[in-house]
Amino acid sequence: MQFDIALIGFGTVGRGFVELLIEKKALLKEYYGIEWRITAISDLKLGSIINSKGIDAKEALRLADTGRSLENLSVEKRGLSSLEVIRESSSNLLVEVTWTNLENGEPGYSHVKEALNLGKDVITTNKGPVALYYRELKELAKKRGAFFKFKGTVMSGTPSFNLIEGPLAGCYIESIRGILNGTTNFILSEMERGMSYEEALREAQRLGYAEADPTMDVEGLDAVAKLAILCNVIFDLDLKPKEIPRRGISSITLEDVKESLSKGKRIKLIARAEKIEGKLIAEVKPIKLSLTDPLANIMGVMNAINFKTDCLGEITVIGPGAGRRATGYAILSDMINIAMNRR
Amino acid sequence: MQFDIALIGFGTVGRGFVELLIEKKALLKEYYGIEWRITAISDLKLGSIINSKGIDAKEALRLADTGRSLENLSVEKRGLSSLEVIRESSSNLLVEVTWTNLENGEPGYSHVKEALNLGKDVITTNKGPVALYYRELKELAKKRGAFFKFKGTVMSGTPSFNLIEGPLAGCYIESIRGILNGTTNFILSEMERGMSYEEALREAQRLGYAEADPTMDVEGLDAVAKLAILCNVIFDLDLKPKEIPRRGISSITLEDVKESLSKGKRIKLIARAEKIEGKLIAEVKPIKLSLTDPLANIMGVMNAINFKTDCLGEITVIGPGAGRRATGYAILSDMINIAMNRR
Repeated sequence: MQFDIALIGFGTVGRGFVELLIEKKALLKEYYGIEWRITAISDLKLGSIINSKGIDAKEALRLADTGRSLENLSVEKRGLSSLEVIRESSSNLLVEVTWTNLENGEPGYSHVKEALNLGKDVITTNKGPVALYYRELKELAKKRGAFFKFKGTVMSGTPSFNLIEGPLAGCYIESIRGILNGTTNFILSEMERGMSYEEALREAQRLGYAEADPTMDVEGLDAVAKLAILCNVIFDLDLKPKEIPRRGISSITLEDVKESLSKGKRIKLIARAEKIEGKLIAEVKPIKLSLTDPLANIMGVMNAINFKTDCLGEITVIGPGAGRRATGYAILSDMINIAMNRR
Repeated sequence: MQFDIALIGFGTVGRGFVELLIEKKALLKEYYGIEWRITAISDLKLGSIINSKGIDAKEALRLADTGRSLENLSVEKRGLSSLEVIRESSSNLLVEVTWTNLENGEPGYSHVKEALNLGKDVITTNKGPVALYYRELKELAKKRGAFFKFKGTVMSGTPSFNLIEGPLAGCYIESIRGILNGTTNFILSEMERGMSYEEALREAQRLGYAEADPTMDVEGLDAVAKLAILCNVIFDLDLKPKEIPRRGISSITLEDVKESLSKGKRIKLIARAEKIEGKLIAEVKPIKLSLTDPLANIMGVMNAINFKTDCLGEITVIGPGAGRRATGYAILSDMINIAMNRR
């Protein structure tokens, strides 16, 4: 299959994806019959370019990594808006990797909708459109005969909800519990080593795990968005992040952490959902886990998810939840999945 | 897709599979377009029956669970050998679930070869034929246009090597480390609670986790067979179990376990493989793991596998490694995989 890719957003994730595309070019062709060209890139800071015969991906990376405009490249068109790029580029795949906006999903929501309406496949790592408009976008994709894939929105490339299409196909998922936010898990891990919440947060900011405004992470908003996505995919719902009760970790003190440990328990920010008699119970909150719990030993920025299934009992998957390469791989994995399904 | 199933072996795993087939009948039809009939069953103890219009699966289970011969059922043919059943039954899928023989793979090897030669798809949970003749059987299947699937040979239905077809597709696996034998992990876990090796082994036997002759488990033969299968699938090799250096747990004392723990380490029987400069290093032996190792906290009969990948770093999967339902599910999962690939 030939993918002509329009890339909206060319930050860390977009570039991580393109690096993997280049690195895995021969493997993609040989194992999955995938050939690709990047026919358009649009980025707020780096400019916007279209070239129907393919953009020089290595040159684009070089410019972006040194902060220079992509419009320096020799291409057919420059300076269009992202929506114009989606419409005017000869692409059959939109890779949407702009920032997450959990208020109204924009601008990602419009990008995704535009591409699906044009019958293009869409892969995104942007939680906004998926957490807020999953059902609508899924149905639009179905109507247009396009794929809508978003593995990277939850636990980056680490297997999570995509297991239900393959290795867990045919299992009924009874409940989900996850450590879906690496920043808060890092902070709690550092507190166990003796730091106050404030010190641990500063350390997370220093290492680039937390934003200057850490609200999304520490108040559980990021975890809630991911839990909504998991629930919608796994339980086929149309749950919105705002409907999920949420408590973050900002009120947890070093004393709380120590007291828990002295009782053989570890505090973790857990996103959990369970279907009981057809009714969904979903919430994000700090929970004191027994140290024998498979989620209790996940330390630092790692993520983990535990599925309770009717066929296998509990299955736990541990892996990275973020990162240039891991999230880039999530997109690549969705691309392989599309190619295999289109075969 | 219509599966007409010949089932060779109708012990715990075969029955667990048939129970799931019955339980998931509607789901298989609706989600995967799978319809099924059992057209033959052959079991050394329970007899052998063929019925081209389908055997009453519930009645067969009832007879087997009460130890009565399947030949009491009203069917077209009775009393054939297992090879005759494979040849004479109108089946397109062989489910081979006889006992594991790591000396020469029989009788499973002949069963699998016969069915593949006839162009039938084969699913097995029998480690013998796969560990000893993987390459030959894989090539035979390819030549005959048949599928040869064996998820249940490693970690029962818990995702393991099947991840590389889906959620880890396109990743290069740099190394594997696993706790692949639940019996030895149970014994080591009990020793940590203060039992001697002999006491812990007796407890494992009492609970049905260990055989009367525990050699296969405690001397690492079972883990070696599973590691050979993993290596062959993941690294595309033709490695035999006998080529893998092996040390079991029978010489480990309570003092060893205690001394390790006092140094913050836990002894685990680890199967590991790594490709270094094109050369494979594979071995099974007890290793003292740091308690922060994701495999160090797997206790009791649970299994776990850790993949080091080029795209995601380390991914760990924890789940059951045995059990009537979990291994029955492994077969069901292979069946869904075949149906999706044949679509």
